[in-house]
Amino acid sequence: MAANADPTVDPGLTSWVRVPSRSPFPIQALPYGVFARNGGRPRVGVAIGDQILDLAVLADAGLLTLPGQLQVSMFDQARLDSFLAAGRSVWIAVRRRVSKLLSSSNTEILDGGLAARAVVPQDGSTLLQPFTVGDFVDFYSSLEHATNLGRMFRPDGDPLLPNWRHLPVGYHGRAGTVVGSGSLIPRPSGQRRGDGTPEFGPSTRVDFEVELGFVIGPGSKRGSPIPTDRAAEHIFGVVLVNDWSARDIQAWEYQPLGPFLGKSFATSIGHWVTPLDALGPYRVSPPPQVPEPLPYLRAGGAWGFDIDLEVLLSTEAMRRRGSAPKRISLTNFASMYWTMPQQLAHATINGASVRTGDLFASGTISGSDPGSYGSLIELTENGTQPIDLGGGETRTFLEDGDEISIVGRAGDGFRIPQIGLGSVSGRVTTTD
Amino acid sequence: MAANADPTVDPGLTSWVRVPSRSPFPIQALPYGVFARNGGRPRVGVAIGDQILDLAVLADAGLLTLPGQLQVSMFDQARLDSFLAAGRSVWIAVRRRVSKLLSSSNTEILDGGLAARAVVPQDGSTLLQPFTVGDFVDFYSSLEHATNLGRMFRPDGDPLLPNWRHLPVGYHGRAGTVVGSGSLIPRPSGQRRGDGTPEFGPSTRVDFEVELGFVIGPGSKRGSPIPTDRAAEHIFGVVLVNDWSARDIQAWEYQPLGPFLGKSFATSIGHWVTPLDALGPYRVSPPPQVPEPLPYLRAGGAWGFDIDLEVLLSTEAMRRRGSAPKRISLTNFASMYWTMPQQLAHATINGASVRTGDLFASGTISGSDPGSYGSLIELTENGTQPIDLGGGETRTFLEDGDEISIVGRAGDGFRIPQIGLGSVSGRVTTTD
Repeated sequence: MAANADPTVDPGLTSWVRVPSRSPFPIQALPYGVFARNGGRPRVGVAIGDQILDLAVLADAGLLTLPGQLQVSMFDQARLDSFLAAGRSVWIAVRRRVSKLLSSSNTEILDGGLAARAVVPQDGSTLLQPFTVGDFVDFYSSLEHATNLGRMFRPDGDPLLPNWRHLPVGYHGRAGTVVGSGSLIPRPSGQRRGDGTPEFGPSTRVDFEVELGFVIGPGSKRGSPIPTDRAAEHIFGVVLVNDWSARDIQAWEYQPLGPFLGKSFATSIGHWVTPLDALGPYRVSPPPQVPEPLPYLRAGGAWGFDIDLEVLLSTEAMRRRGSAPKRISLTNFASMYWTMPQQLAHATINGASVRTGDLFASGTISGSDPGSYGSLIELTENGTQPIDLGGGETRTFLEDGDEISIVGRAGDGFRIPQIGLGSVSGRVTTTD
Repeated sequence: MAANADPTVDPGLTSWVRVPSRSPFPIQALPYGVFARNGGRPRVGVAIGDQILDLAVLADAGLLTLPGQLQVSMFDQARLDSFLAAGRSVWIAVRRRVSKLLSSSNTEILDGGLAARAVVPQDGSTLLQPFTVGDFVDFYSSLEHATNLGRMFRPDGDPLLPNWRHLPVGYHGRAGTVVGSGSLIPRPSGQRRGDGTPEFGPSTRVDFEVELGFVIGPGSKRGSPIPTDRAAEHIFGVVLVNDWSARDIQAWEYQPLGPFLGKSFATSIGHWVTPLDALGPYRVSPPPQVPEPLPYLRAGGAWGFDIDLEVLLSTEAMRRRGSAPKRISLTNFASMYWTMPQQLAHATINGASVRTGDLFASGTISGSDPGSYGSLIELTENGTQPIDLGGGETRTFLEDGDEISIVGRAGDGFRIPQIGLGSVSGRVTTTD
């Protein structure tokens, strides 16, 4: 996909809404979210600079009317669900229309006297969980992460199991504990392997996992797999994911049926869902796959994405002394071995259906050098090599009060505009 | 719980609605379901004999009015969800009121001239999926099943893994492919271990699993585990479950993150949800647990249930020649090692919340003798000992056209009234 085929990602485009330099949300980004102001009803909005464009106000004023498809009610909602379900032609039409309304040369919002109501500051708005999660699937699609974890969880065996290069390994997580960015993360309690008999108590090995998830728009029918070349009809866009993990609970429970309580206490997602259409300029070829996968997993097209993901840790002591959060990892989504169309084709090849709002997360995104590992268990070599945070603090796993923020961005800001995917944050709290 | 403390399970109780002898639904049962007639709106009903009592009609006529709690709209619904969410005091009040309205000595429905509208034949009604499934968790709580499967999937190791007697092992399944009884089950395709490289094609080892699931009423808050002695506030009742499994897909994919596509193509549930309150007379002590579990898993009370589960197989040839379905297993829920309060306490001990409609399935219910195994992989010793179906037919795994029905019942019909849990059926179909 040539970047300049789509006018909404044109590097020359600017907005009449002031966008601070280094803002993650120039007019080329336009991610969708749900927000509320002053206790008012939640509605669907689009991020632009430090502001939110209120789509419910625009629709109500007739500025989003498109042939026979859009209704006010699609945006006057507490979730993106209706918009997600509307499908690709509506997504394209809305994005083009919003891009046009916001572009420097357009005066429709200003002429209508709508600017004050339709463009509201993010500051002072409450951002909400953007969509109803149907089923939540978590993959394991980074070669580096799977190798690192395999080495630690199965020290006596081959780190990469025989199936890994043949299929995108994944499992179902708990949809009911997917929470929006900013939600507190109470430290989970549970069983861990003890000396003879298991021990019980608050987890001592709480970890994060940097992931990117894709969100399903229109669902599919049971019995009808989604081939790789139809993926774009079902995938609306991507959201940042932190797949919190309690390594001690996970290690004791996960055989033979996989992770359960080591993961199910919480999974945080970002407030902004970035449509695939905003990511055209950042598409790259995914890594080569050896051996070649089975035909149902072959996917053409540049389904890799050059997206940087930065992990910031802020401790209570750091906040007390006014220190900025410390970057503990910088990784990139382009290294992922299995791509979204492959993951979706695999997850449905047995006839399983998908529903609007299903969330498919990538699995931890780890690069090949240690500074790019996407979890503490990898960054600290299974807790044996503490990270130095400065100020006399070190970490192996997360302590109470620790806040993890994952920030996503794409583009170099020169040849290719830099856009952000927003961030996902969560703070570990004591349970008592 | 003494059976006669609850008037709704009194063995002497009879109904003015004619209940055929051997009916699974005498007045002591009263399970809830959702039905529609002649293309009309779905509504909530209660099974009685061959009939359905329409609760929406009763509520509309003012016959279900209870102090400040019940509204017509709770039953004028396509799902049980509102009723489930209403909680234990409402469940008890409605069950007592319905039991009274249906009892031989009561004439309120007849006096109101409502009998024809409120009591409708099951024949000619369409039964629907009874509730919206939130998250679907599947346990592995039969000692016999876990041992049998462990032996087959890990022939070189200890069949029971070290964690099994310390916690109810479980995993999340796919909620979006939980389907109502009678839904067709297209044979799943997928990868299986091949000779060097994996093979692809329709599964050749499609299996059933006999399970019983419990359904969550009021949800819980994230960060607040549900102790075993509060389980009854959250568990509304039970439903029959067939956890369809493709053994060849499962065997190749399940390491290290557990079952995924080998299970996610479909899980069938029964049309009738039997409230815990109907099961009082069938409570028994669960098997002893050695070693004693950790304190958070200790549960008092008779949380075993003496419920027979019969598996019937009908092939295309059998139906063509008019033969009755063949019973291939008869098992009993009382043998389950881990109980519902233990499963719920475990699933939430890490702070995970539950939602109305969450489904927690028991795992395959296998007894100790081979005729009581709850899956074909066990009944046929991993496909090596075919079952003789008569008429020249044998089976290792399911063939296209095979229909599996699981029928549940409790009580001996003499000392203790016999009630049924209904049935769950599904037919495997070719995918092309």
